[in-house]
Amino acid sequence: MSQFYDAIVIGGGVNGGSVAYQLAKRGKKVLVLEKDRIASKASGAAAGMIAAQAELQDDDPLFQLARKSRKRFASLAEELKDLSGVDIELINKGMYKVALTDQEVHEYKQIIDIQKRAGEHAEWVTGDEVRKQEANVSDDILGAMYIEHDGHVSAPQLSQAFIKSAAVLGVTIQEFVEVQSILFEGEQVVGVATNEGEYKAENIIVTAGAWSSSFLRQTELDLPVYPVKGECFSVRTHQPLLKSTIFSHGCYLVPKKGGRIIVGATVKPHTYNQQVSVEGVAGLLEKAKHLLPSIGEAEWDQTWAGIRPQTADGLPYLGEHPTYNGLFVATGHFRNGILLSPITGEIMADLIERKEPAIDVHPFRLDRLTATNV
Amino acid sequence: MSQFYDAIVIGGGVNGGSVAYQLAKRGKKVLVLEKDRIASKASGAAAGMIAAQAELQDDDPLFQLARKSRKRFASLAEELKDLSGVDIELINKGMYKVALTDQEVHEYKQIIDIQKRAGEHAEWVTGDEVRKQEANVSDDILGAMYIEHDGHVSAPQLSQAFIKSAAVLGVTIQEFVEVQSILFEGEQVVGVATNEGEYKAENIIVTAGAWSSSFLRQTELDLPVYPVKGECFSVRTHQPLLKSTIFSHGCYLVPKKGGRIIVGATVKPHTYNQQVSVEGVAGLLEKAKHLLPSIGEAEWDQTWAGIRPQTADGLPYLGEHPTYNGLFVATGHFRNGILLSPITGEIMADLIERKEPAIDVHPFRLDRLTATNV
Amino acid sequence: MSQFYDAIVIGGGVNGGSVAYQLAKRGKKVLVLEKDRIASKASGAAAGMIAAQAELQDDDPLFQLARKSRKRFASLAEELKDLSGVDIELINKGMYKVALTDQEVHEYKQIIDIQKRAGEHAEWVTGDEVRKQEANVSDDILGAMYIEHDGHVSAPQLSQAFIKSAAVLGVTIQEFVEVQSILFEGEQVVGVATNEGEYKAENIIVTAGAWSSSFLRQTELDLPVYPVKGECFSVRTHQPLLKSTIFSHGCYLVPKKGGRIIVGATVKPHTYNQQVSVEGVAGLLEKAKHLLPSIGEAEWDQTWAGIRPQTADGLPYLGEHPTYNGLFVATGHFRNGILLSPITGEIMADLIERKEPAIDVHPFRLDRLTATNV
Amino acid sequence: MSQFYDAIVIGGGVNGGSVAYQLAKRGKKVLVLEKDRIASKASGAAAGMIAAQAELQDDDPLFQLARKSRKRFASLAEELKDLSGVDIELINKGMYKVALTDQEVHEYKQIIDIQKRAGEHAEWVTGDEVRKQEANVSDDILGAMYIEHDGHVSAPQLSQAFIKSAAVLGVTIQEFVEVQSILFEGEQVVGVATNEGEYKAENIIVTAGAWSSSFLRQTELDLPVYPVKGECFSVRTHQPLLKSTIFSHGCYLVPKKGGRIIVGATVKPHTYNQQVSVEGVAGLLEKAKHLLPSIGEAEWDQTWAGIRPQTADGLPYLGEHPTYNGLFVATGHFRNGILLSPITGEIMADLIERKEPAIDVHPFRLDRLTATNV
Repeated sequence: MSQFYDAIVIGGGVNGGSVAYQLAKRGKKVLVLEKDRIASKASGAAAGMIAAQAELQDDDPLFQLARKSRKRFASLAEELKDLSGVDIELINKGMYKVALTDQEVHEYKQIIDIQKRAGEHAEWVTGDEVRKQEANVSDDILGAMYIEHDGHVSAPQLSQAFIKSAAVLGVTIQEFVEVQSILFEGEQVVGVATNEGEYKAENIIVTAGAWSSSFLRQTELDLPVYPVKGECFSVRTHQPLLKSTIFSHGCYLVPKKGGRIIVGATVKPHTYNQQVSVEGVAGLLEKAKHLLPSIGEAEWDQTWAGIRPQTADGLPYLGEHPTYNGLFVATGHFRNGILLSPITGEIMADLIERKEPAIDVHPFRLDRLTATNV
Repeated sequence: MSQFYDAIVIGGGVNGGSVAYQLAKRGKKVLVLEKDRIASKASGAAAGMIAAQAELQDDDPLFQLARKSRKRFASLAEELKDLSGVDIELINKGMYKVALTDQEVHEYKQIIDIQKRAGEHAEWVTGDEVRKQEANVSDDILGAMYIEHDGHVSAPQLSQAFIKSAAVLGVTIQEFVEVQSILFEGEQVVGVATNEGEYKAENIIVTAGAWSSSFLRQTELDLPVYPVKGECFSVRTHQPLLKSTIFSHGCYLVPKKGGRIIVGATVKPHTYNQQVSVEGVAGLLEKAKHLLPSIGEAEWDQTWAGIRPQTADGLPYLGEHPTYNGLFVATGHFRNGILLSPITGEIMADLIERKEPAIDVHPFRLDRLTATNV
Repeated sequence: MSQFYDAIVIGGGVNGGSVAYQLAKRGKKVLVLEKDRIASKASGAAAGMIAAQAELQDDDPLFQLARKSRKRFASLAEELKDLSGVDIELINKGMYKVALTDQEVHEYKQIIDIQKRAGEHAEWVTGDEVRKQEANVSDDILGAMYIEHDGHVSAPQLSQAFIKSAAVLGVTIQEFVEVQSILFEGEQVVGVATNEGEYKAENIIVTAGAWSSSFLRQTELDLPVYPVKGECFSVRTHQPLLKSTIFSHGCYLVPKKGGRIIVGATVKPHTYNQQVSVEGVAGLLEKAKHLLPSIGEAEWDQTWAGIRPQTADGLPYLGEHPTYNGLFVATGHFRNGILLSPITGEIMADLIERKEPAIDVHPFRLDRLTATNV
Repeated sequence: MSQFYDAIVIGGGVNGGSVAYQLAKRGKKVLVLEKDRIASKASGAAAGMIAAQAELQDDDPLFQLARKSRKRFASLAEELKDLSGVDIELINKGMYKVALTDQEVHEYKQIIDIQKRAGEHAEWVTGDEVRKQEANVSDDILGAMYIEHDGHVSAPQLSQAFIKSAAVLGVTIQEFVEVQSILFEGEQVVGVATNEGEYKAENIIVTAGAWSSSFLRQTELDLPVYPVKGECFSVRTHQPLLKSTIFSHGCYLVPKKGGRIIVGATVKPHTYNQQVSVEGVAGLLEKAKHLLPSIGEAEWDQTWAGIRPQTADGLPYLGEHPTYNGLFVATGHFRNGILLSPITGEIMADLIERKEPAIDVHPFRLDRLTATNV
């Protein structure tokens, strides 16, 4: 027996939740299918940085996407809290991208110029100025790019907030359901077959992170998305050691509510293994102690890992299938999945409604790396 | 080697945290000593109801205290979020105190009259009106006292928010430190001896819940405070089953963020045992299924218990020791520890500063049940 | 880049572990691929009963299989402990299959006759005799079939013991690897394609429980295996409430080490959802209180669920693919996965080695329900 | 209302459990009072080494005590398994006390001589011989003292096994009960006052680890016992990295069942704080990587800390109070609490029964450091 929906979202992570939420706001009847639990993969593991400027360096399409998405968080936080009661723990206390070598000093100053030209705030601060604001950081910090508008949220809470708000708006959430294949009539999507039966819809959105490309194999579209493991740990103190996020080469320190700091993240491509390695912990620990010596006195909290989806050219995929109507994909956000989730939901809802998105999504189309004529 | 403080708070629960926070706001140097972890006892276990009107029935001193305290939550939520980043999850969607028997109908209508005369909002709604607002509740509900201004917070989050905000304001938090005795010079408090050494202060505030009276034994004051175990469980759904709190004889259902419902609580006096009994779960489960039949379809979440401090006359103790200067006690809040925590912090800070509290605290003085002349 | 193995086991549950272990003992180079963590599904959730006689009633092929498997546990426990250090917690204190109605009395007496004729020990004991041995059970128990040789192990520990012993013998264990397809050359298995690359082997054994049939879809063999959810909870006491297992219609009580009792299990077919429902807990709790009234005083421990593989005719599948050489399947053990795991490992190893198994496996062949000529 | 017992044990750790178990075997009616949960402090945190020879160096009374206690484990493991079902996970695969400096080489060779003269097996093995047995250890190991008869158990399981076996033999176990004072009539113990009422007994045994001396304060006996925090972490692999225990200056690696390794332990005196510090983890991690480079590939498991009781002269206290009849103390076992628990139970039971213990306990008497004439 089948049930009919306007849209079926495959994957209950932060982007699946955002898509479902935006569609529900527009009155659509939506089903979210998640093979495990909501936000059980990368979305539940992310440190939650909204690092549009710290992570991205060139004034390119991804940077534009990130800037636009970052702007959404303040109002989104209120909306989602009202609907679901979930606080996404938005903290907007700026970010220091710190330089430990002369080369990084040089490089970051150039990035500041690029970003200023692009209309964003960014400024160079000396090591002493950093330490004036953040008394506990290392004397080895030579200076930093200070980014006033980068911040962070709780990734698990944001993911839950999207899903729970979507549910309040009528979206059906099914956990532990695996999609086995997408169903077509000719070149039109008509539903999905799952291990618990079939569901009908004329729009399917694949938001399954590093697992996304497997759903497209039957369509002969080989989407070059691959997994990149990231390991993290966290610590706790009563008196906060940091106010702003400290971002450096190979290690970031994100000061969460109540004196918790998340230290992340390793970058281990081509594995789906979610175990935290001893070597991963040891490497992060060494870097964290270098950046913030007093972290040694903090309480050890926990470790975890997530599997992030990366693409061959580093850009996400946001678009409709080149051949099949109604088959949409949003994946490949790599380390920017949390940051990009608000705009991803909007773009995908626009595409499904056949509206022009607020941003040019041509650079993110699905056939950009495989098609011969574009 | 001793360290000097303006005040030492014994007990890192919600009321200890509130006292420390209020003192810190007034510029005091404060130390909180907790024998286990912060909020590891009743404060971490409470369902978090702010039930000034549902729990209390007469226009008496406790009711006045509760009303005043309830008013503090809206601004407190903002303050604590700003300082610590912790959201106390304040939800103000009203409470239905539901009647399942004709006698309860009669009784609750009388309480409404009392509370209206006391200047509070309360109204009678029929069973059908309840079900119109809350579609999932039982057909056996004959009607309810609807209390617009009762709500709830997250008890663990509120406790953390107080402590972490206090820490941000400079309060020192020491976990795993047991106070062995209070130190006096004549009739003046001068500090405490702990299992990790002595700390000096001219003000000591005992906020150790059901464990409070042991600290007073050396002062020959026998405070009749005793433990009452309360067991709870919680369930989860994606689509919320409830919007408002449902309060009934022997069982309440508190709808938390994201579709979680806390079901509480048993009342088992004279034990410090924090284990959840099978019988306790079974009894609550039966009552919850009666009130909200569709709870059967929810996901089982978890069980826990807390040990609440009750007093011989049902009123909390908020005051200074009748003999010893600088020795203060705030305990005996029973099921209202979360509700009363804001005002408790203010009152105790006033008393320590030798200011007149905003409310008459004579009914809560320490020697009310033992003194011969008052 | 491929790696070569003698055999690849798909699924790291108790039967996958047993197969890998038996193959390793015979000197084979084996790889176990598990999509999640070892024993994360049914094998980690089972109550661990070795209920050859309590679960099975007729002297049929499954009963023969179960009897043979049960005999293996004593020596297996020693072997696995020696190799891996893991104690499988084998307890052989008998089982009471209790009758609560006259019809059950009649029925169980008949089963005793059948089992005696089959050469097994089983005897009828009166309600009072049961209560003489087990003082805490209900007065409503009219009598019981007493089965001396049924017992139980720890299902999670047995699963770990197989896998860890296999690892000690050289088997490679890969977690978080999903098999995407089985690779063939003509009608010969040559390996598997996974989300982390290809692995080569001439023998593939599918031991993926309720997820097994999906791996066969590409071979056009439609194996009628479906999931059946079972929910459980456990309780604890210091003084044990039970010595023997109590087995009744719809509820069993399994006394584990150290005073823990597992209460199981619901039977909910056709879902892969691993959530524990409130209704499931409530139903088991009511039955458990009826069988063992003093369970009310025990401490509540935890709840969980597992997804067990059932087949259309109730018999497991143990055999080679009717068309493809080297493709083996062992699944469909339903509630007997733990009990049947020792013999399953032996049979599959025999089949792979082209040896005659110690038991006639014709009733368990893969094409028995689909083939036209057998 | 009081209840009468032959003996009351204060403290439900491994030594309290052992005393209760030995008394129960001798037919005594025993009550164990534990303020938290069974084995919630040092006993649940220990790595479980039975390192009579690796930890102790001189042929002194403590060494004699340790040797005798070590011999008990084999038969004890069987007894406790039979009674409680709990496997204590005794592993007797020897221990390498490894030398990383020439000075350690010299020192350990001398210890070998001492221990051989004392009748124990111990031998020097070269670095290459160590690596022949343990292929993964560091090339920096110059050699090792190999101790055939040292091994390890699971400390949490041993603690549970004692308590649960005691319960099976009729001992009453009460958790969450705090003893407030010991009751005397003249110089005879008559019971205890607790936060849940009084219990009567003519023998009280204090086995409260680092918390023991507080119970004696009322007797004017100042027992110099102080807390020493030890932090640990553990890792996991499928293929075991080690067979034997590796013991070095400041770090030991204990290979547990199923490929788990416990890495311990820091030594931080004079704190009861059970938090694990980032610095503690970092220090152990560095040492562990030095000893066993391939630990980097293992999976990170968990961290924890325990508070061990040390004494001023390094010897445990095992004896009766010098003034009060019936008041016994067994504490101060420091890092040897697990190792010494079997003999501790026997000695204390002998003392209570007024029998001569199998070993001279004069060196462990309570007044050895305070009395003027002994």
